[in-house]
Amino acid sequence: MISSRTQVTEMIVSAKVRKGLKWADVAEKVGMAKEWTTAACLGQMQLSKEQAAVVGEIFELSDEAIAWLQIVPYKGSLPTAVPTDPLIYRWYELVNVYGTTIKELIHEEFGDGIMSAIDFSMDIQRQADAKGDRVNVVLSGKFLPYKSY
Amino acid sequence: MISSRTQVTEMIVSAKVRKGLKWADVAEKVGMAKEWTTAACLGQMQLSKEQAAVVGEIFELSDEAIAWLQIVPYKGSLPTAVPTDPLIYRWYELVNVYGTTIKELIHEEFGDGIMSAIDFSMDIQRQADAKGDRVNVVLSGKFLPYKSY
Amino acid sequence: MISSRTQVTEMIVSAKVRKGLKWADVAEKVGMAKEWTTAACLGQMQLSKEQAAVVGEIFELSDEAIAWLQIVPYKGSLPTAVPTDPLIYRWYELVNVYGTTIKELIHEEFGDGIMSAIDFSMDIQRQADAKGDRVNVVLSGKFLPYKSY
Amino acid sequence: MISSRTQVTEMIVSAKVRKGLKWADVAEKVGMAKEWTTAACLGQMQLSKEQAAVVGEIFELSDEAIAWLQIVPYKGSLPTAVPTDPLIYRWYELVNVYGTTIKELIHEEFGDGIMSAIDFSMDIQRQADAKGDRVNVVLSGKFLPYKSY
Amino acid sequence: MISSRTQVTEMIVSAKVRKGLKWADVAEKVGMAKEWTTAACLGQMQLSKEQAAVVGEIFELSDEAIAWLQIVPYKGSLPTAVPTDPLIYRWYELVNVYGTTIKELIHEEFGDGIMSAIDFSMDIQRQADAKGDRVNVVLSGKFLPYKSY
Amino acid sequence: MISSRTQVTEMIVSAKVRKGLKWADVAEKVGMAKEWTTAACLGQMQLSKEQAAVVGEIFELSDEAIAWLQIVPYKGSLPTAVPTDPLIYRWYELVNVYGTTIKELIHEEFGDGIMSAIDFSMDIQRQADAKGDRVNVVLSGKFLPYKSY
Amino acid sequence: MISSRTQVTEMIVSAKVRKGLKWADVAEKVGMAKEWTTAACLGQMQLSKEQAAVVGEIFELSDEAIAWLQIVPYKGSLPTAVPTDPLIYRWYELVNVYGTTIKELIHEEFGDGIMSAIDFSMDIQRQADAKGDRVNVVLSGKFLPYKSY
Amino acid sequence: MISSRTQVTEMIVSAKVRKGLKWADVAEKVGMAKEWTTAACLGQMQLSKEQAAVVGEIFELSDEAIAWLQIVPYKGSLPTAVPTDPLIYRWYELVNVYGTTIKELIHEEFGDGIMSAIDFSMDIQRQADAKGDRVNVVLSGKFLPYKSY
Amino acid sequence: MISSRTQVTEMIVSAKVRKGLKWADVAEKVGMAKEWTTAACLGQMQLSKEQAAVVGEIFELSDEAIAWLQIVPYKGSLPTAVPTDPLIYRWYELVNVYGTTIKELIHEEFGDGIMSAIDFSMDIQRQADAKGDRVNVVLSGKFLPYKSY
Amino acid sequence: MISSRTQVTEMIVSAKVRKGLKWADVAEKVGMAKEWTTAACLGQMQLSKEQAAVVGEIFELSDEAIAWLQIVPYKGSLPTAVPTDPLIYRWYELVNVYGTTIKELIHEEFGDGIMSAIDFSMDIQRQADAKGDRVNVVLSGKFLPYKSY
Repeated sequence: MISSRTQVTEMIVSAKVRKGLKWADVAEKVGMAKEWTTAACLGQMQLSKEQAAVVGEIFELSDEAIAWLQIVPYKGSLPTAVPTDPLIYRWYELVNVYGTTIKELIHEEFGDGIMSAIDFSMDIQRQADAKGDRVNVVLSGKFLPYKSY
Repeated sequence: MISSRTQVTEMIVSAKVRKGLKWADVAEKVGMAKEWTTAACLGQMQLSKEQAAVVGEIFELSDEAIAWLQIVPYKGSLPTAVPTDPLIYRWYELVNVYGTTIKELIHEEFGDGIMSAIDFSMDIQRQADAKGDRVNVVLSGKFLPYKSY
Repeated sequence: MISSRTQVTEMIVSAKVRKGLKWADVAEKVGMAKEWTTAACLGQMQLSKEQAAVVGEIFELSDEAIAWLQIVPYKGSLPTAVPTDPLIYRWYELVNVYGTTIKELIHEEFGDGIMSAIDFSMDIQRQADAKGDRVNVVLSGKFLPYKSY
Repeated sequence: MISSRTQVTEMIVSAKVRKGLKWADVAEKVGMAKEWTTAACLGQMQLSKEQAAVVGEIFELSDEAIAWLQIVPYKGSLPTAVPTDPLIYRWYELVNVYGTTIKELIHEEFGDGIMSAIDFSMDIQRQADAKGDRVNVVLSGKFLPYKSY
Repeated sequence: MISSRTQVTEMIVSAKVRKGLKWADVAEKVGMAKEWTTAACLGQMQLSKEQAAVVGEIFELSDEAIAWLQIVPYKGSLPTAVPTDPLIYRWYELVNVYGTTIKELIHEEFGDGIMSAIDFSMDIQRQADAKGDRVNVVLSGKFLPYKSY
Repeated sequence: MISSRTQVTEMIVSAKVRKGLKWADVAEKVGMAKEWTTAACLGQMQLSKEQAAVVGEIFELSDEAIAWLQIVPYKGSLPTAVPTDPLIYRWYELVNVYGTTIKELIHEEFGDGIMSAIDFSMDIQRQADAKGDRVNVVLSGKFLPYKSY
Repeated sequence: MISSRTQVTEMIVSAKVRKGLKWADVAEKVGMAKEWTTAACLGQMQLSKEQAAVVGEIFELSDEAIAWLQIVPYKGSLPTAVPTDPLIYRWYELVNVYGTTIKELIHEEFGDGIMSAIDFSMDIQRQADAKGDRVNVVLSGKFLPYKSY
Repeated sequence: MISSRTQVTEMIVSAKVRKGLKWADVAEKVGMAKEWTTAACLGQMQLSKEQAAVVGEIFELSDEAIAWLQIVPYKGSLPTAVPTDPLIYRWYELVNVYGTTIKELIHEEFGDGIMSAIDFSMDIQRQADAKGDRVNVVLSGKFLPYKSY
Repeated sequence: MISSRTQVTEMIVSAKVRKGLKWADVAEKVGMAKEWTTAACLGQMQLSKEQAAVVGEIFELSDEAIAWLQIVPYKGSLPTAVPTDPLIYRWYELVNVYGTTIKELIHEEFGDGIMSAIDFSMDIQRQADAKGDRVNVVLSGKFLPYKSY
Repeated sequence: MISSRTQVTEMIVSAKVRKGLKWADVAEKVGMAKEWTTAACLGQMQLSKEQAAVVGEIFELSDEAIAWLQIVPYKGSLPTAVPTDPLIYRWYELVNVYGTTIKELIHEEFGDGIMSAIDFSMDIQRQADAKGDRVNVVLSGKFLPYKSY
């Protein structure tokens, strides 16, 4: 009996290691960006029937697990409010150190409102650099103005 | 008596509102990116003697306050571990929802290590869009491989 | 020296008690809904120049305080993550008890996405009832579908 | 052996995905509002013998599970004090941003007391809108005046 | 400038010690129970105009402070979620040790619902006892049944 | 293998639902107050050999489980420091709102010390009331004066 | 205006450093044990009129401060739930490492109940030891059996 | 497969209840103080090969479990930072109420340093008393002076 | 099915106790420092194919477990934010007591930046000492200057 | 009136910035290591009369402030349990990632016990390195074996 998406995520993660798969390849088969596809496989996005079927085949999931992929998950991928993993913590640190800066500059440009985390996309790329390659990440979120009424 | 950088940040923020200044203009006078300059003025970066002098003049700071700008601050700009402000929270949410995805994809491309938050830069831009303008943010951090020994 | 919006909120709250004002009257003068106006006066919304001038006159604020009303505030009106005040706690309890229900029903109707808290309005009314009058609150938020990419 | 309502909720959730059911249909069969019915199925409300029998049939529950549906549950549907799921967080954010506003306006209209979360009902509807459909939620709670003695 | 009820509570507490007053005497002058009166003076209840005048005279408060007594306060009298003071902690411990018992027995008698903390009164008395006097506390709260709809 | 009292509590709770028992009846058979008996069955009190035998028979427990009932349990019945269940939360709220009041009045009557939560009893009764029946709870705790030395 | 015992504790601590006093000498003048006297001066115990007068003279306190010494304080001397100071942390660690041991052994000897922290005394002594002097602490608390009823 | 000392502690605790053993008797067979022995059996101390063999025989442990007894455990016996169990909480309360007192008096006698929780022993005894028997606990810890360098 | 590195760590730890192995010997076979090897076996580092094969042989792991050793783990080895184990807590205490000192001295020598925890190594040695042997730990981390841009 | 060491630390920090001093120079004048001296000036160590006099002269402190330097401080230099400052966080991360490794290796070498944080010294040095200079830190703490009794 599957009673939460977390169980399906564990099946996917387990199969991925066992079969030696790559997220980039999974994404190509699903036909979506590698960022969205990975988030979806890790239990953060709802998949369409077709996408779920493809993912199910790749990771050899049962029909019940495939049905769960099409359910909107309870989101949030981290076990603690402040993440302990160093790679993820650096992102938390960016929000902590640069949070008020980001707020000031978006408001200066757009006025009151937010950068959407829903109408949002992310692109992660390697940038070659003689002093050491860099991780380049482009975040794109629709600006949503606060409604006054 | 000034005993922490926080007091200087409050002076700057207060003067900014009183004088109706813009971070973009401050940055231009300082000669650095608006993201770095804003973070520096908000107490997250150490300024050089010249930068501190310019900032001091813009915000009419005392010599003691200008001296404090040249001290490395105790960083972290948020009053709570989980930010309450909606704009900043959306960024926390991104880390929460996409944290494991970012981790997977960077490791898939680079192996074990992190994206530096120190050898790091950020660029925030408005992207015109017929369905509503977007906030585009480019984050660039050097990849640092875990040392094995 | 004013260095945060909180100080202006305290001036407003203090003047309101001293002068025996009502939020409904303030809202009428500002020309906005009482819900938006109260939130704005309590430091949660940015006011336009004209709105700030009206509010400044009502509460006898200084020019510096009026300037602060036009700055986007750091939002979040509660001193603790779980509110201690019984009236506000009941709302926290609603989110706690009904949170998963709200999630299920919005997803069932709209698919994956959220009800916006930014493109949002609220209307609070008294509903006469023989068994005891009721508080009726209408919340209206734009549905924002999760973008897949 | 069933030793908590949580186990029954997991059975219901699991069966719902497996059988592809909708809360609206479940509610119709139970003969109650979809909001109350969903909350009840998710372990937040006590069901009557008749309601439990209907729910038991829909989700193919054992007699023991049906007995548990008639027990008052330990309420609270969220795994953390601050919810991580974006849809539910937006509601937490409303309480955080508008909490003091709601408090002020209810007290201004009714005096000291609270809006009941027990003698309470909720109605969630889609409101068509050219700029994007909206989620409309009506909350109705009896006003309970603080007793002085 | 008074900007919160807390400041008025501090004035009252300070005057009480300075003048050597007793809550029982204050309550008699106010004409309410000593439990309600003490809670009101400690910033947890709204006072009527007449009650505020009496309290103001007893503790020699300014008109501004007396106005604040008539405002509904932000309630919650403890500095931490788990109280450190031994006397108050014992009450927290009762809730912790007996919480599920109280829940079971009220539900067994009344069905689903709560004991109101709003339509509520409390009476604290000394009960003489040869083995050591006892504190007897009677709590009376209206039962509020959960509404189903 | 039983390794904690919690497992026995789960057996009791499970049997109670399965067999449709009432705490009042259990208490009568055990020969103790319903408050003490319920707390004991819910894992908060140590039972005597005779009491454990009766409880074991009622809930059809194994000898090992009956042995565990005679062990002093690790007390505390709530899963979180601030309880999420509305009925239990109201009690937490009473401590929060009235905590300093209770402290003041007990000290005014008795001097420094506490109301014992160990030499303590509780009695919960329904009080008929035309405006809605009330829950009446009498708490009786020995006053324990602070020793000075 | 003094509005809390904390202010008086700060006066005492400040005077003690300024005047170079010792707790042992203070205790001798007060005529109580050094453990009780120190706790009382640090804001954890209520002093009698005579004791307060002596303490007031030693630390040159005002009459208002002396009046506050005779009020039962809100107890708890640590700024965080887990103490950061190494000396005090070692005691927290003892409770953490030996907590279940202490519980087992007291219950084995006395049955269910607690060691009182109210009818309690403490004695701290230096014990000469060739391998390094030791701190010897004797704690004495009345055993309080749990009441069954 | 045993993968943590906690599993062995559960085996010991389970066997102790099942066989009706006493810590004092276990300690005698092990040949150590009852305080040390109980702490060791509850997973807080490392046992020697001989001690582990004796404990293994008493509680009928497997060879694998006996091997685990000889491993230094991850210490800390409490499930929450602030213990909920009343007996253990009283000790936490002592640290909270008397923490600063203990600190002051040890520093007054010894200078800067700590009372060791490692080179430490504890002795718990019943002290007969006409007004009710007392728990007497002697704590002995080596004083460790802070090194300056 | 293995779905997290934690399961593999438990297998390793279990086998180590069962077989009586030493980390120093494991490290020698792996051909890396004992500090890195232990951290890797405890689930904090990614192993190469060859290293994983050696570790798998030593601890008799399945192929699936060996595959998991080559995956970058979710790092963080402690169950609570403030560690309860005395040995590990002393390190937390060092950071707490000396944290600002370390910050000051590194900035004084190097300017703004950090000591890397990624390009980092650690060496733990016993240092013989007549007054008691000492643990000597050498930490070496690359200095990373904050980028200004 | 000075009522805590924190106030003296603020005076020192303020004077250091104002006068442009270096910790290394302060340490030389005090005649102690720069690590100990900095920690002492930042409120973590007790100074001798002579050391306090030197520090007082360097930072132009009052006699009262100099007296406070000779008092054992309440230690702990960080404002939050998990530090937000990136440099200090890296050290917290080391404890988190390597905590169990350190524990294993010290126990493997020494048996049960701890590395003292009291009989402890620290030495921070720059190590030139072609690939970027490194921070080298040597920590030396006496091993303290757990006493069994």
